[in-house]
Amino acid sequence: MSEKLWGGRFSKTTDEMINEFQASIAFDRRMYREDIAGSLAHSAMLAKVGILSEEDRAAIDKGLRDILGQIESGAFEFSVELEDIHMNIEKRLTDAIGDAGSRLHTARSRNDQVALDTHMFVRRSVVEVLGHIAELQHALVESAQANKDVIMPGYTHLQRAQPILFAHHLMAYFGMLTRDFERFQGVYARTDIMPLGAGALAGTTLPIDRAFVAQKLNFERIYTNSLDAVSDRDYILEFLSAASILMVHLSRLSEEIILWCSREFSFVELDDAHCTGSSMMPQKKNPDVSELVRGKTGRVVGHLMAMLTAVKGLPLAYNKDLQEDKEGLFDAIDTVNFSLAVYAQLIRGMKVRADVMRHAVEADFSNATDLADYLVRKGMPFRQAHSVSGQAVALCIERGIWLIDLPLTDYQKLSNLFAEDVYEAIRPETCVAGRNSYGGTSYEQVAMQLTAAEELMAEEKRILSALETKQQIL
Amino acid sequence: MSEKLWGGRFSKTTDEMINEFQASIAFDRRMYREDIAGSLAHSAMLAKVGILSEEDRAAIDKGLRDILGQIESGAFEFSVELEDIHMNIEKRLTDAIGDAGSRLHTARSRNDQVALDTHMFVRRSVVEVLGHIAELQHALVESAQANKDVIMPGYTHLQRAQPILFAHHLMAYFGMLTRDFERFQGVYARTDIMPLGAGALAGTTLPIDRAFVAQKLNFERIYTNSLDAVSDRDYILEFLSAASILMVHLSRLSEEIILWCSREFSFVELDDAHCTGSSMMPQKKNPDVSELVRGKTGRVVGHLMAMLTAVKGLPLAYNKDLQEDKEGLFDAIDTVNFSLAVYAQLIRGMKVRADVMRHAVEADFSNATDLADYLVRKGMPFRQAHSVSGQAVALCIERGIWLIDLPLTDYQKLSNLFAEDVYEAIRPETCVAGRNSYGGTSYEQVAMQLTAAEELMAEEKRILSALETKQQIL
Amino acid sequence: MSEKLWGGRFSKTTDEMINEFQASIAFDRRMYREDIAGSLAHSAMLAKVGILSEEDRAAIDKGLRDILGQIESGAFEFSVELEDIHMNIEKRLTDAIGDAGSRLHTARSRNDQVALDTHMFVRRSVVEVLGHIAELQHALVESAQANKDVIMPGYTHLQRAQPILFAHHLMAYFGMLTRDFERFQGVYARTDIMPLGAGALAGTTLPIDRAFVAQKLNFERIYTNSLDAVSDRDYILEFLSAASILMVHLSRLSEEIILWCSREFSFVELDDAHCTGSSMMPQKKNPDVSELVRGKTGRVVGHLMAMLTAVKGLPLAYNKDLQEDKEGLFDAIDTVNFSLAVYAQLIRGMKVRADVMRHAVEADFSNATDLADYLVRKGMPFRQAHSVSGQAVALCIERGIWLIDLPLTDYQKLSNLFAEDVYEAIRPETCVAGRNSYGGTSYEQVAMQLTAAEELMAEEKRILSALETKQQIL
Amino acid sequence: MSEKLWGGRFSKTTDEMINEFQASIAFDRRMYREDIAGSLAHSAMLAKVGILSEEDRAAIDKGLRDILGQIESGAFEFSVELEDIHMNIEKRLTDAIGDAGSRLHTARSRNDQVALDTHMFVRRSVVEVLGHIAELQHALVESAQANKDVIMPGYTHLQRAQPILFAHHLMAYFGMLTRDFERFQGVYARTDIMPLGAGALAGTTLPIDRAFVAQKLNFERIYTNSLDAVSDRDYILEFLSAASILMVHLSRLSEEIILWCSREFSFVELDDAHCTGSSMMPQKKNPDVSELVRGKTGRVVGHLMAMLTAVKGLPLAYNKDLQEDKEGLFDAIDTVNFSLAVYAQLIRGMKVRADVMRHAVEADFSNATDLADYLVRKGMPFRQAHSVSGQAVALCIERGIWLIDLPLTDYQKLSNLFAEDVYEAIRPETCVAGRNSYGGTSYEQVAMQLTAAEELMAEEKRILSALETKQQIL
Repeated sequence: MSEKLWGGRFSKTTDEMINEFQASIAFDRRMYREDIAGSLAHSAMLAKVGILSEEDRAAIDKGLRDILGQIESGAFEFSVELEDIHMNIEKRLTDAIGDAGSRLHTARSRNDQVALDTHMFVRRSVVEVLGHIAELQHALVESAQANKDVIMPGYTHLQRAQPILFAHHLMAYFGMLTRDFERFQGVYARTDIMPLGAGALAGTTLPIDRAFVAQKLNFERIYTNSLDAVSDRDYILEFLSAASILMVHLSRLSEEIILWCSREFSFVELDDAHCTGSSMMPQKKNPDVSELVRGKTGRVVGHLMAMLTAVKGLPLAYNKDLQEDKEGLFDAIDTVNFSLAVYAQLIRGMKVRADVMRHAVEADFSNATDLADYLVRKGMPFRQAHSVSGQAVALCIERGIWLIDLPLTDYQKLSNLFAEDVYEAIRPETCVAGRNSYGGTSYEQVAMQLTAAEELMAEEKRILSALETKQQIL
Repeated sequence: MSEKLWGGRFSKTTDEMINEFQASIAFDRRMYREDIAGSLAHSAMLAKVGILSEEDRAAIDKGLRDILGQIESGAFEFSVELEDIHMNIEKRLTDAIGDAGSRLHTARSRNDQVALDTHMFVRRSVVEVLGHIAELQHALVESAQANKDVIMPGYTHLQRAQPILFAHHLMAYFGMLTRDFERFQGVYARTDIMPLGAGALAGTTLPIDRAFVAQKLNFERIYTNSLDAVSDRDYILEFLSAASILMVHLSRLSEEIILWCSREFSFVELDDAHCTGSSMMPQKKNPDVSELVRGKTGRVVGHLMAMLTAVKGLPLAYNKDLQEDKEGLFDAIDTVNFSLAVYAQLIRGMKVRADVMRHAVEADFSNATDLADYLVRKGMPFRQAHSVSGQAVALCIERGIWLIDLPLTDYQKLSNLFAEDVYEAIRPETCVAGRNSYGGTSYEQVAMQLTAAEELMAEEKRILSALETKQQIL
Repeated sequence: MSEKLWGGRFSKTTDEMINEFQASIAFDRRMYREDIAGSLAHSAMLAKVGILSEEDRAAIDKGLRDILGQIESGAFEFSVELEDIHMNIEKRLTDAIGDAGSRLHTARSRNDQVALDTHMFVRRSVVEVLGHIAELQHALVESAQANKDVIMPGYTHLQRAQPILFAHHLMAYFGMLTRDFERFQGVYARTDIMPLGAGALAGTTLPIDRAFVAQKLNFERIYTNSLDAVSDRDYILEFLSAASILMVHLSRLSEEIILWCSREFSFVELDDAHCTGSSMMPQKKNPDVSELVRGKTGRVVGHLMAMLTAVKGLPLAYNKDLQEDKEGLFDAIDTVNFSLAVYAQLIRGMKVRADVMRHAVEADFSNATDLADYLVRKGMPFRQAHSVSGQAVALCIERGIWLIDLPLTDYQKLSNLFAEDVYEAIRPETCVAGRNSYGGTSYEQVAMQLTAAEELMAEEKRILSALETKQQIL
Repeated sequence: MSEKLWGGRFSKTTDEMINEFQASIAFDRRMYREDIAGSLAHSAMLAKVGILSEEDRAAIDKGLRDILGQIESGAFEFSVELEDIHMNIEKRLTDAIGDAGSRLHTARSRNDQVALDTHMFVRRSVVEVLGHIAELQHALVESAQANKDVIMPGYTHLQRAQPILFAHHLMAYFGMLTRDFERFQGVYARTDIMPLGAGALAGTTLPIDRAFVAQKLNFERIYTNSLDAVSDRDYILEFLSAASILMVHLSRLSEEIILWCSREFSFVELDDAHCTGSSMMPQKKNPDVSELVRGKTGRVVGHLMAMLTAVKGLPLAYNKDLQEDKEGLFDAIDTVNFSLAVYAQLIRGMKVRADVMRHAVEADFSNATDLADYLVRKGMPFRQAHSVSGQAVALCIERGIWLIDLPLTDYQKLSNLFAEDVYEAIRPETCVAGRNSYGGTSYEQVAMQLTAAEELMAEEKRILSALETKQQIL
């Protein structure tokens, strides 16, 4: 039976079933580095302001670094009885160094300690996510560059709409990821606030120096209100929101990859590493990774929903409900990081079947807008040109041909603005090259996008590098 | 490196990271009993229809029972390389008995095999949940019976409204749980459908006997459409829906327990086993279990959201996204079972402070409706009586007294229908006893509720017992 | 300025902004029939037990029926000042018939009145939904029967897997809808519980007869606990759960229709009524209805999440938060009814392109399982047969041919079990006809499914008809 | 019957039911200002680059301004037949000015037009929300200043924990709102990107000048990828995420207000304007506004879930599912703005009952931590001090007294570090004043918080003012 640490008042021991359900050591052990770094900074501060003797501080320092070594070497045995990572470490420390260990918790509560560790863990996780986002952006740019002349049908409503460059399509995802990168920077900024020193809820009577701790642990800001510090879970909600939006992006990319891998589309072929076969159907090559990522979108959205529900309606300050903040968060972190990492690989390994895409563009009416634009350029009002183009399409469908095959005489029956140059105007390359408005699909515009992307990625690299440096707290 | 089972066609091995992310053995090993029972029934059927020789069947039978023994004794080593529980068992079987083992998968696909196991696992889990619901109902009835004369304020808008019996309040939760019991019976009925024999998606060319398997495994119905059989996840969505509603009920009960444990209410005292102390504030006795259950409501709702999102928009039949069905489900099962079990304990251990509740009823205006009803009985239209009662309350507030203290002369200034009997009419016991309409809070009605509850619980016991029998498939 | 009805005690009028935000008349006016029917039954009961004189009852009866007429003719003016449908009707009644009107609210509270109306409204809505489900099932059966020989590729992972009958594919949705029908019957059963008589929360001191009211309004059960009666929102949560699952089904069907309408698949052509064009691309024929229904799945899921969040953690009994129960519910009802109704139309209007589907089956390896099954029938263990079949596929891919084109000599190099009859064994019709296990895709099995469906629909019709009769309460 | 605008190709008119379900005019009419401003900027650009004649531009300008006047005067009749606000305005324009009107849509698609309008609408809505956040922050600061010496119990687990200043408690919400303000600035930045010129999906062949339009409409950035521009709904998802987190904050405040209004707490009294009475219980004063806001949290969370579900798995570029983006968004905007506005009022009108709060602090053990801290200051290790303090509490409970009442001799039996100064150390004012660490609850720290808040609000005012200027686009 465990001897509980608040044992003074209680006459019964907590039931084992409850014990197990309350224990968080199974998942919060991931925060051991943060817990140790936090305790090192806290004890350094206690010594600086004179609450702790230098001898005690040194003993704590050595003791904690020993524990760090044990954990990283696998020698540390975690105990469910001790409930969480914080008590596991503190108990071991006290066992090892005696009295000095029991002074470490001075001017600190479990509430602000847990908050500190989680802030640092999320902060570090955000940096990992940022790195993976940047890596996937690189993969997209590489594939776009490698396939920069490939023409494919652009779709709306999953109907072929207008010819576009495959590179242009990929770069739409680059745009989404750019916003994801920005959003996670916002998450970082609102995670990078130091809660330690808030005590259980109201601060402490001891003369602590929070700014010293914040500086040691590379925090940009300090919570200005102690109640807020221990009950704030915004940074987790915001992480899960940003993660959900990011996963929705990857679910869209996954849907497209799955479509493109179908025999009906056959636009790409994935590397075998990102597919699996069937136990019953030997010819199958299933885009499992894309399906998994699409499916895991639900998981991350579910974690967001779980946390919003858990925090809804809670009075200040700390409530035990808030312990529910970690498992979903950790799973979301892993899911996002895996999904981004595997997609960087998948995009790099994906073979683009330019011939199939090109054929899809030719055997289609996706140049009908260009036919209408041709008329507009010759002076016809847009709505009328659109109607004439529709009539030409209807005529072709009737005859089983494409627009490129319709004789000029037929065109001229629909409008006398048509001339021989109409055929050049509706060739795929012409259609693509013509959409040269800023952000359009033309060769020139896409080349500009790629150049801008290189600059953006260089800037992201600078940001990442600065943030990575700030994570060195041990 | 693992040799993949669909290996014929592929030239590269699947990347390890992906392997790990795809592997489900970490969680689907919980279904080992179902997998073995399913394979025993399948092989018996194959032998019966002549696809499998009796020797092979016997070898499979013995081999599977050996594996069952190894798993239950802890001797079985699960391999991530083999991805899931199904391949772990099949590989071990083939290693042990050779060729016969490789014939087990005849006329079966991983798709329908997984579906079968999951159906049986959910079916069994539903029975566990039903048992826990019934147990909590028992605890509520016991506490209601033990406290059957205790009067407390009834609340609306968290404002004291009318005096009620504490037993009546508890029995409101009994009512919710009764509907939960019904709902989970519905989940059972729509889980109790046998998918095996659907093959990968279209059935099999072999002359299998699905009815034989269904009977062996105690299934009431068989899927009539093979595509539906392998892509149906309704039973999981419905389980999670019913579980979410149930958790919302427990979140409401938790909120009340937490309120009642506050110093401001002080209506109940929990057993120490269901509370914890604070590492910093020695006087605290926190209702952690109730807070945890309230918080875990979010978790179950999140799993429902995750699964709805995952299945949304998936074409038929099986897609890998559907593998996301288990982790959230298993966690929801554990959460619901724990929450119900711990609440049965908590209710049984909870001390009711009848004196505090009684005092709260006296020092209040919650008998104002009774004052209005008194006037209605004397012939005043309701809306007018309501207004007179409001004026009496206002008068008392002005003077800092309660309705019981207002002199008759003052009452009679408000209406000449008031007489000496008004004081008896507004005593708490009178107020409670008077609400004797069916389902009301009177002593008589609550006694009737308790009698009806006993009958219902007896019926639930019969249902449970029958369902438990059906789970004996090994 | 409105004179509020609880005006006795308050000195200030409620701020207008709040007034508007609190007012529910904009949406709860839909329940006018239920409110009037409820009041008629309530007043009849009051008269029966002697609380109301026969004259008053008759006046109320006439007054309410007049109001019903005014509302249905459009002559009734709803007032936001009066907040909700209940006060709008009661005020009008009192204006029209005086004192008798003000006696209608005797032994009734707004809490149980609102609960009664909503129960009746949901009950009726469930019957509508059941009717629409049955109608869509009919449409599916009709299309399955009209296309009963059409062969298409069956998919897993959106990869062609095995040839199946198009009718078989459609009937998978029939199976889902059958469970939806069952689930909504469960919703009906748990909505069909009469709350009136619960008063504000604790019952009433007046000698009411709840069974009489229940019988008048065709309720099967009566709430046995008054607190539960006014705070129960399970029936709404359960409606939204069942609706979410149903919409997920329709989202899957929508996804498939959208795929099938793409030029890449071209499996079906929708009626123009269920498509729209593009303002810019005249050749487009967009499956808008299917996209809308797929999108609206989110809406219904969102309403479920909204309601779970709203009810989470609420203490008993009534809290104003519960007023949030209607808008999402009403929108979900409309969305589900529209989606089902439009899909019955869409399926009936959809042209199936049998030739395109057949071609997709031929130009593929989806008969690879049949090749393996052929070997199994000749005695090869399944796993080995699967591997041989995979090698045959690999050989064909290398040569750019299909399995049907591979010379027998090549087959025999892979296994000497191959003979001339292999070609017959892998023809699409053979493959389909061969999957004759119960629930499989064979012609015989699908015909049996259709026969069973006819019987089920006849049974559903009987159920619906009985339920519709029970909705006649006015 | 409406003549559809893409009518060229279709032979049937769209079914009326579908028409109604597809029509968005009922809700998107709110964007009329944005639509007109967008069209004015677009036509100015078309004229500038020479696509439109100056006469046509002037005619369009006058026509659109006339329509603006009609809409704002209420003279404009919206037509469901014309589906959305864009066609309603364009049709009216063409009716009024003829051919020139039909040239307005040149080089523009409905896809990028809708995107433009929605971006501008959300941008403006964000500014409104920011204003309301700042206003509520003001109200909190005012109340904190007005009650700056009021002491109340601080809670964790809804158990009294330590004495704190009421002002400190309120300022915790100020902190949350500060982060909300930051988050919505992020939403603004990612909404402030100009999509017009993306055409249907691929840009346009016409020589448009997107930078000119962006400048006219005060956009900071332009979408660099046309596919992304028409399919991006991140800004809506991010708005809904930020709104959900904000509503969770308000749900927490609401929960507290509801608790504080209960007779058990009686910490505050709300203005009558923010309460309502009961139709049955005249003494009730219900905190309806707080309950409504708490309940409406679910609604906003539901809209977020709806939109995440809708966008999940959609291929590029535009799909009709995306039309589902507006109703939930608009409702969320209204809900957030109302909730913030009403809370600013409510906080200002709330009477704080300092005496009740003070009494709650005295009659409690919430100074137990201070007792422990007292011992720590005298040199006892924290864990031991905590245990001694727990024993003192246990002793007091046994005797039915508070810590302030325990004789010194008893204290000294527990530890000889106790002296006469212990009584001063555990007085509420001492406890509060002593928690003087940065962010703590001491008088000094809270005064510093209030000063910092004033500065922050001044900065927010500058930001708001700049953003408001940018919304002047008409």
